Amino acid sequence: MAVIYDRVALIGLGLIASSMAHAMRAAGLAGEIVGYARSAETRAIARELFCDRVCDTAAGAVAGADLVVLAVPVGAMAEIAAEIAPHLAPGATVTDVGSVKQAVIDAVAPLMPEGVHFIAGHPIAGTEHSGPRSGFATLFRNRWWLLTPGEGADADAVARLRGLCEAMGAKVDEMEPAHHDLVLAVTSHTPHLIAYTMVGVADDLRRVTDSEVIKYSAAGFRDFTRIAASDPVMWRDVFLTNKEATLDILGRFTEELFALQRAIRLGDGAHLQEYFTRTRAIRRSIIEAGQDTSAPDFGRAVSEGVPGE
Amino acid sequence: MAVIYDRVALIGLGLIASSMAHAMRAAGLAGEIVGYARSAETRAIARELFCDRVCDTAAGAVAGADLVVLAVPVGAMAEIAAEIAPHLAPGATVTDVGSVKQAVIDAVAPLMPEGVHFIAGHPIAGTEHSGPRSGFATLFRNRWWLLTPGEGADADAVARLRGLCEAMGAKVDEMEPAHHDLVLAVTSHTPHLIAYTMVGVADDLRRVTDSEVIKYSAAGFRDFTRIAASDPVMWRDVFLTNKEATLDILGRFTEELFALQRAIRLGDGAHLQEYFTRTRAIRRSIIEAGQDTSAPDFGRAVSEGVPGE
Repeated sequence: MAVIYDRVALIGLGLIASSMAHAMRAAGLAGEIVGYARSAETRAIARELFCDRVCDTAAGAVAGADLVVLAVPVGAMAEIAAEIAPHLAPGATVTDVGSVKQAVIDAVAPLMPEGVHFIAGHPIAGTEHSGPRSGFATLFRNRWWLLTPGEGADADAVARLRGLCEAMGAKVDEMEPAHHDLVLAVTSHTPHLIAYTMVGVADDLRRVTDSEVIKYSAAGFRDFTRIAASDPVMWRDVFLTNKEATLDILGRFTEELFALQRAIRLGDGAHLQEYFTRTRAIRRSIIEAGQDTSAPDFGRAVSEGVPGE
Repeated sequence: MAVIYDRVALIGLGLIASSMAHAMRAAGLAGEIVGYARSAETRAIARELFCDRVCDTAAGAVAGADLVVLAVPVGAMAEIAAEIAPHLAPGATVTDVGSVKQAVIDAVAPLMPEGVHFIAGHPIAGTEHSGPRSGFATLFRNRWWLLTPGEGADADAVARLRGLCEAMGAKVDEMEPAHHDLVLAVTSHTPHLIAYTMVGVADDLRRVTDSEVIKYSAAGFRDFTRIAASDPVMWRDVFLTNKEATLDILGRFTEELFALQRAIRLGDGAHLQEYFTRTRAIRRSIIEAGQDTSAPDFGRAVSEGVPGE
C-alpha cells in the first residue's frame, strides 16, 4: 500500500496510538512516525517498539507533521491543543481518538489555526489493557471508526483520513458529534459504568469473601471484570465529559432494572421469560454483523490455568 | 481411570448433562449412560451423541441407576422428583446441577426415599448455548463444582460424587445452601440480570437504532450480550427461586449505581477514578486464580467476519 501521510505525530502513546503505529508500519502507510508522551519511560518503549522518533515535547513532535493524532485522555486535550497549535504545519490534519466527541471538539477546535483540518474521530476498538506495550497491528480490523468532521470540513482531508482508517482495516462512518455521544453512551459508556458498579459491589461485600467472588467468577461475573479493568483516568474523563448522555441512558437503565426487580418480587415469571427471550436475539445479530465471535464463551471454552484458593 | 458409577441417569439433556456425558465417556467414568428429556428430538440427538440408551420417561431412565443427575430447570425439579422417587434404586445417589440450591433442596429432598442419597450440587460452568448439541467434554476443567450435602449426608456417597466431579476436571467445594445462594447471587444471578437489563435498554431505545447498537457493540456492549443470550427459562426459574438473595444484591447494586451517578452529575472525578482503580485489581486476581484467560479482550484480539450494515 502507498504512504498516506508523510509524517504522523502521535500525541499520547497508549493502546490506540501504539496500535495505529503498528498498523501503519505493517502496511507502509506512514513515511515517518513521531511520538510524544509525558513520561520518558513511555517514550523510550515507544521508540523501541513503534516510533521512528520521539520528542519530549508535543510541540516538537508535531513540527512538519501532515497528520497529528491526539491520543490522550479527553481531559488533557485542551492543554495539548493549546501547546501544539502554533507549531502545526499549514494544511496538516489533526484528529483524535477519544471516546467522546462533542467535548473534544469544544476543547480543541477553537484552538486550531486557519488552514489546519481538525477532524475528530473515534475508533470503536480496544482492549482492557493500557500503555505502549499493549498495542498491536490488527486492533482495528473489522472494527468501525467514526468520524465527526462537521459542516465545512475539507472533503479531501476527510477522504484522506478515511483512507488511512480503512487501510488499517476499519470501516468508516460519519456522524454528528452529539449523536455519536448518545450512541456511545448506549454501546459503551453506560455498559462500562454498569460493569464498574457490579464489580465494585462484589468487592465491597462482607458476607461473601473476595476469595469466593474470585473462585466462582466463571458463573458470569468474570465477563464484567474485563471492562471494569479499563483505564481509570480515561474513563473518569469519559463520564465527566459525556455527562448528559450517560445520565440519560443510566436513567433508562434504572427504570428497566426496577421493572425487572418488581417482576422478581412479584414472581412474574412470564415477564422475565419474555424479556430474556428478546435479549437473546441481539447476540445473534452482533455475531452476524461480524462484531463478535461465534465461539461459545468468547472462545474461552478450554480453560487455562488451575483453580486457585 | 476407573468407572465411578455403573449406570448414570441424566434427567434433562442440555448443556450441562451433555457435557457431563462427554466428560464421563472421555475418561471412562460411567459404565452406562441413560438419558431422559421431554422432547423426542432431544432424546434422539442425545442417543446419537452421548447416551448409550434413552428412555421416554424419567422413571424408566432411573431404574437401576446408581447416580441420577437432575439437569432440568429449577422450576421442573419437584415434578421430576415426584415421578422418579418410587423407581430409584436403593443406595442410589441423586444430585442436581441447578444454579440455586435452597429451592432445589426444598423441592426435592422431602420426596426422596430412605436409603437414597440426595446431594445437591452446582457446577460453576457453562456457555450461553443450550441443548444437547452444546455440550463438550472439557466444560468443567478447572471450574469449581459446589456441593451442598447438608448435615447427616452419607460421607461415602459425598466422597464418591466428589470423585466424579474431580475426575471430570473440576475442583470441589462444599458449603451451606443458603450461603451458596448468596454467593451465586453476587457472582452470577445479579450479573445476569444486569446484563439482561443493559441489553434490553439498548434494544428498546428509539433514538439509537438497532443497527447502530449492533455495529458499534465492540465498544463494550458486546460483552453483555453473551450472558444476556442465556436460556430464558433457566434464568426465569433462577430469579423466581433465588428471590431474596437476588433482591438483596440488587439493592446494593442500585445504591452503588446511584452513588456513581451522583458523582458523575456533580463532576466528582476523584471519586470516579478511585472507584475504577479499585475494580481493576479484581480482574488480575481472577486471572491469577485460573478463572479467566489472560489474553486481552478474552482472546478475541483478531476479529472475525466482516462489518455489516
